Amino acid sequence: MNHQDWIRKELRGLAISLGFKYIPLQEIEDRLTRVRRGMKEQGIEALLVVQKMDFYYLSGTTQDGLLFVPLEGKPLLMIKRELERAKVESPLEDVVASNSLRELPSVIKDHLGRLPQTLGLELDVLPVKEYFKYQDLFSGVRLLDSSSIFRDARKIKTPFEMDLMRAAGEIGRKVYLEARDILREGMTEIQFGSLLEAVAKRHGHEGLLRVRSLNYEAYSWHVLSGLCGGIVSQSDSPMGGLGLSPAFPVGASLRVMRAHEPILVDFGTCYHGYQTDETRMFSIGKMEQKFIDAYNACREIHDAVLEEVRPGADCEALFVKTLHVAEKLGWRESYLGPPGLQTRFIGHGIGLELNELPFIAQGQSYPLEERMTFALEPKIVFPGEGSVGIENTVVVTQSGYEILTKVDQDIFEVGG
Amino acid sequence: MNHQDWIRKELRGLAISLGFKYIPLQEIEDRLTRVRRGMKEQGIEALLVVQKMDFYYLSGTTQDGLLFVPLEGKPLLMIKRELERAKVESPLEDVVASNSLRELPSVIKDHLGRLPQTLGLELDVLPVKEYFKYQDLFSGVRLLDSSSIFRDARKIKTPFEMDLMRAAGEIGRKVYLEARDILREGMTEIQFGSLLEAVAKRHGHEGLLRVRSLNYEAYSWHVLSGLCGGIVSQSDSPMGGLGLSPAFPVGASLRVMRAHEPILVDFGTCYHGYQTDETRMFSIGKMEQKFIDAYNACREIHDAVLEEVRPGADCEALFVKTLHVAEKLGWRESYLGPPGLQTRFIGHGIGLELNELPFIAQGQSYPLEERMTFALEPKIVFPGEGSVGIENTVVVTQSGYEILTKVDQDIFEVGG
Repeated sequence: MNHQDWIRKELRGLAISLGFKYIPLQEIEDRLTRVRRGMKEQGIEALLVVQKMDFYYLSGTTQDGLLFVPLEGKPLLMIKRELERAKVESPLEDVVASNSLRELPSVIKDHLGRLPQTLGLELDVLPVKEYFKYQDLFSGVRLLDSSSIFRDARKIKTPFEMDLMRAAGEIGRKVYLEARDILREGMTEIQFGSLLEAVAKRHGHEGLLRVRSLNYEAYSWHVLSGLCGGIVSQSDSPMGGLGLSPAFPVGASLRVMRAHEPILVDFGTCYHGYQTDETRMFSIGKMEQKFIDAYNACREIHDAVLEEVRPGADCEALFVKTLHVAEKLGWRESYLGPPGLQTRFIGHGIGLELNELPFIAQGQSYPLEERMTFALEPKIVFPGEGSVGIENTVVVTQSGYEILTKVDQDIFEVGG
Repeated sequence: MNHQDWIRKELRGLAISLGFKYIPLQEIEDRLTRVRRGMKEQGIEALLVVQKMDFYYLSGTTQDGLLFVPLEGKPLLMIKRELERAKVESPLEDVVASNSLRELPSVIKDHLGRLPQTLGLELDVLPVKEYFKYQDLFSGVRLLDSSSIFRDARKIKTPFEMDLMRAAGEIGRKVYLEARDILREGMTEIQFGSLLEAVAKRHGHEGLLRVRSLNYEAYSWHVLSGLCGGIVSQSDSPMGGLGLSPAFPVGASLRVMRAHEPILVDFGTCYHGYQTDETRMFSIGKMEQKFIDAYNACREIHDAVLEEVRPGADCEALFVKTLHVAEKLGWRESYLGPPGLQTRFIGHGIGLELNELPFIAQGQSYPLEERMTFALEPKIVFPGEGSVGIENTVVVTQSGYEILTKVDQDIFEVGG
């Protein structure tokens, strides 16, 4: 059969029968409205969307290509390779084949009737070499940074996006439900982590987590047992774990987990690109009392933040409050990392990427807004011994919050 | 216990007992020699290494930081967060804490005695916004692109690197050995893929595969059954599969695999950052004859290339030869993709990244060199029906090649 015909006739039905949710046109238009508000404010006449998640956010597809978004008029989706599939996936009307960068200005000119005077590109991620090419191609056009437009638009989730995040949270819940039957003495951290991941994938988890950064890599198998929980690494997080090698020195290792030690499982889930993140504690037999006490303190800090989560609450103030609660509870020294390496955040915005707005952190004084989503993760670290923590992903509602990661918050204890 | 003390005293022993192989100083010095040859040729007086794999290649660590490499004199490793761990991981002598970009020029001036006149940065991946910061910081210094220096240095593997790639290949071999016991009727593609990944991780696979690119994402769970094998997607590969959503439209899907259809498993493995890649065919019960014939053609094409692999063989000529063999065998129409979407490569260099030199491809006329490593992957695609293929990772030896992925090449057939 002809490939293009097959894609046109069969792909949509097959994909939907296997769980695909395509983004409707109305949803894209709502997002475009939000993005165009930012363009107007910044005096940017058109965007060339180059980064995969921004591209998906505004087109509904991640087929290889570029998206041109003028302030007025229709967006133009230019696809390098699989045009027919992009047409199935994207509700946008103008979808064309375009695999030559050299022709880009003329394709845009044809679409808009002229070249824009200013063109926004995501300069926070666009590689310099590609930028130079765009400079050559668009010699009379001012190239500006569009990254804050996307950051601002994407920090407020639509109901459609929240549903996808709820579905991600539901996958995470299933992972923790099955985890108790998987964990057993003699297993290595990575064995446990990889089997949890297999559960998640069976329920539709997409495997890759995404961070907007040149070098930062995210992953699901963050299982840290005993002393590995006390090890810090490359990531700006209270503890990184040992990992598997100097090339991947974070997360689960080949260490065999032992009875009575804290086993921290920080498991991110991704569904249709949307992520949730949660942390729970496990132990084989009863966990040592010190760690139980510390975990209860983390829960107290976590609840103290949630108590104040609502539109208008200041992100930095929420962070500072946790320092006071940690102090009061007697854990200030080991809160958020070993002395000298303590991090200065307890929450990060989450959605298509793990480092979205808002940050519940020092220096981040701005209000929470309705439909912002963030992961809240107080943690306590004991160098050479282990670490404990809790994490949930929440959405800010009109008057408070909703937890998207509805996992039992008690320690998961399995027979020793 | 004090965290820094613990890291200094305990980390190295713990990590080595759990399989870590640290890069020795002599190895780093050999690599530096190779990189400095490129610097000299390009008139670059010093490098600031910003990308994680280049950084690992020359420092032995992936702790967050920057590496300064002058043409003469010692490199300076500047670590943002976990200094003590970086000191354990890197054999370099000059390792300092440095988490303020603003102080970078003075730190470099202190180390070198002056600022260099030219400074190389990996402009193929460095984001524009960061580049602008470096332009401000180093206003009198010419910033040049160092990416081809790394590309050229890294295309020839050292014996140390080849050993790590052999170990990655050995993990892959174990995966396919166990795969036969895992595959069963009624399983979804992603279930099968995730359980294969769990096997790989149990043996030390690091989970993430790496591609040097803004948007290209690699993954291990490329399991394509029946008609999903005929679907093309975002990647420049003969077939992409359905995937799990428009946000991740490649690789395994939630489709239940059926008896007698071709099941293509393209599984990449990563050990200490070094990757191998291989593809084998599976079926539940006997595969339909057409696919068996096509698979045998792929093996013939694969062997026809290997027959000529040795130092001096031209990469483009090897590719063109496969077109002739495919033609002769009667598969030209479906070779490397459906008509109109056929790719123009059958091999990609592999190591720390999946898109290294050499490319066995159209337009890539240069000779193979001893100790180059590449994945060779002839594939045949039937739109609406499925696909077949074979892939192995090989290293070019003095007089021929060595296969690093020593997996049985027959079809893996399990009971229907």
